[in-house]
Amino acid sequence: MLDRFKVPAGDEIRVAEEALRETTTAVFEKMGVSAEHAAEGANTLVSTDLRGVETHGVSNMLRAYVQQYNDGKLNPRPNWRILRESPGTATIDADNGLAIILGPAAMRMAIDKAKVVGVGVVVMHNAGHSGALGHHATLAAEADMIGMVMTGAGSSMVPTFGAEPRLGTNPIAIAAPAKNEAFVLFDAATTAIAGNKLRLAARVGADMLPGWISELDGTPIMEETPMRERNQFMQLPLGGTREMGSHKGYGFALMAEIVSTMLSGALPAMLAPASGSKHFFTAYNIESFTDVEEFKENMDLVLKMLRETKPAPGHDRVLYPGLSEHEVEQERRANGIPLHKEVIQWFDDITSELSIPRLKTL
Amino acid sequence: MLDRFKVPAGDEIRVAEEALRETTTAVFEKMGVSAEHAAEGANTLVSTDLRGVETHGVSNMLRAYVQQYNDGKLNPRPNWRILRESPGTATIDADNGLAIILGPAAMRMAIDKAKVVGVGVVVMHNAGHSGALGHHATLAAEADMIGMVMTGAGSSMVPTFGAEPRLGTNPIAIAAPAKNEAFVLFDAATTAIAGNKLRLAARVGADMLPGWISELDGTPIMEETPMRERNQFMQLPLGGTREMGSHKGYGFALMAEIVSTMLSGALPAMLAPASGSKHFFTAYNIESFTDVEEFKENMDLVLKMLRETKPAPGHDRVLYPGLSEHEVEQERRANGIPLHKEVIQWFDDITSELSIPRLKTL
Repeated sequence: MLDRFKVPAGDEIRVAEEALRETTTAVFEKMGVSAEHAAEGANTLVSTDLRGVETHGVSNMLRAYVQQYNDGKLNPRPNWRILRESPGTATIDADNGLAIILGPAAMRMAIDKAKVVGVGVVVMHNAGHSGALGHHATLAAEADMIGMVMTGAGSSMVPTFGAEPRLGTNPIAIAAPAKNEAFVLFDAATTAIAGNKLRLAARVGADMLPGWISELDGTPIMEETPMRERNQFMQLPLGGTREMGSHKGYGFALMAEIVSTMLSGALPAMLAPASGSKHFFTAYNIESFTDVEEFKENMDLVLKMLRETKPAPGHDRVLYPGLSEHEVEQERRANGIPLHKEVIQWFDDITSELSIPRLKTL
Repeated sequence: MLDRFKVPAGDEIRVAEEALRETTTAVFEKMGVSAEHAAEGANTLVSTDLRGVETHGVSNMLRAYVQQYNDGKLNPRPNWRILRESPGTATIDADNGLAIILGPAAMRMAIDKAKVVGVGVVVMHNAGHSGALGHHATLAAEADMIGMVMTGAGSSMVPTFGAEPRLGTNPIAIAAPAKNEAFVLFDAATTAIAGNKLRLAARVGADMLPGWISELDGTPIMEETPMRERNQFMQLPLGGTREMGSHKGYGFALMAEIVSTMLSGALPAMLAPASGSKHFFTAYNIESFTDVEEFKENMDLVLKMLRETKPAPGHDRVLYPGLSEHEVEQERRANGIPLHKEVIQWFDDITSELSIPRLKTL
């Protein structure tokens, strides 16, 4: 994550993983969520904070979910329905349940199918937010599979040459196991920056960089510019301009929309604004394709070579997706998770309001 | 395709689709390829030229394939071996066969598996070039499925912050059917521009735009610059710079490498330079997920809304991936395929050398 999005050191208060997990679980339960589901939701969020992905962790997301439960937009007790099923696939109506809770269950179903036929694909519509999509992919990696997850949600992206928002930030994630190296975890919005980064930028006062957002007439803004009000810009696809490849970011966003939304039998937000999020979960059973141990050893060779790549002038080292997240996780498990003091204030308010124990800080 | 890559009008000579197909088939047969395989290879190339994707059509690729057959790098009579197989998956050793010929067969195998278990995944290593990856994906779309194809090949991409080339241009493609609209066909290198565009740029004398290539020390070149000699630059990931999202282009390239190369049990070119290309073919059977007619009608709604998006200042209209390719195909079927006069000269030379009838021009 770019430095501009990090919590400034003076504004951070550390909390232990377990304390954050307990309080988050308690908040979900107060929303009417079952104990099991509340723990699942807390696990998705706290795992994400542990990896340093503040944009999709407790601090940036929990209050939004609380709001959506309170507004009746999320169903705390969803009964998902399997609409179609085959040995390798399933289509699920999530009954307005939050995908940070139902996503892991969908991925486990994909994993079970992959054990039998080599690959499992589960699509889900009528769902809430998925949190950090990569979290669901890691469940496959932990089961010696490759996990690939995509989402269709929202309509904040302006297509290349366009002047109206059409597709969502539609992220794509993949996780794959290694033997001794930190496993690969790639998780990226197909817009130049993730939607949640905009919220975070507003909180930490970060400017927008060239190629991230457009004017309201669709013209890409190619200089650094202050963050604007919600309806005063559109998000550019990855690439920013046609010359730099924005048609590819737009195409990747459409790819995610097709496999998550269209394959679910649903319509994207530009046509059905109140339709919720749609998600696509795939597990590839490595054992069905090749020897698992050899795969992991080969991954080690690849990842070591990537991180040992000679750096360009001005840079310390080359990363691969998942490496810095792994390092942050080690540090945060040891020293706690840093939250912005304003987030701690929100926790104090909400725990008081819901009559649950205050979040313990370190 | 950007104007800079198009054949200048004065330099083009038109040939009929059928004539190009016949001569290309004859060239393959002279390389020792069976009649059936030669026709398959010609079909992949000519279909690509029809769609206007010059970079991966006959003009840019056939002479390279001829060279590889002549050098013994390609096997004209490959016996592919299925190394592992499950109801939804297969792993294939392509025996050094060209993937423009074996790719369609792999995709048909994926389609057959998807008919039975809802999804089919076929990975192939030890293969030659795939041509335009999107071609293989279209075979799924024609069978009322979604096709997704990825390739791991080469090591011309410098990872974000790096100073050494590591991954290939690793393209990703998807095709999905619609009812009345032109079907979606997205096919993009995960580098800022495709490797074949570099060859084409050299031929038509196009400059490199900002964010496409790096200095040899890894520094992204952010101004327009003349095309350089082969070893005087590296290719940047989609995004160009970290701030513009090059870590995402790099991540997508790694994703393609993992599912095509690693899942095949192979190693990427950076570790095994002579290992050939690796490909990943997936077919999702729409009928297993949702109603096919409804899916296609929904796709029509989405694609119509995308192409009717109000354009930004300075632009005529908004496209979706596959739309302009469809339009070009209509025009070229009617008026012939334009080839650079220098390509016609190559055809005259090679047909003379191989003692086959000269390519008929219009």
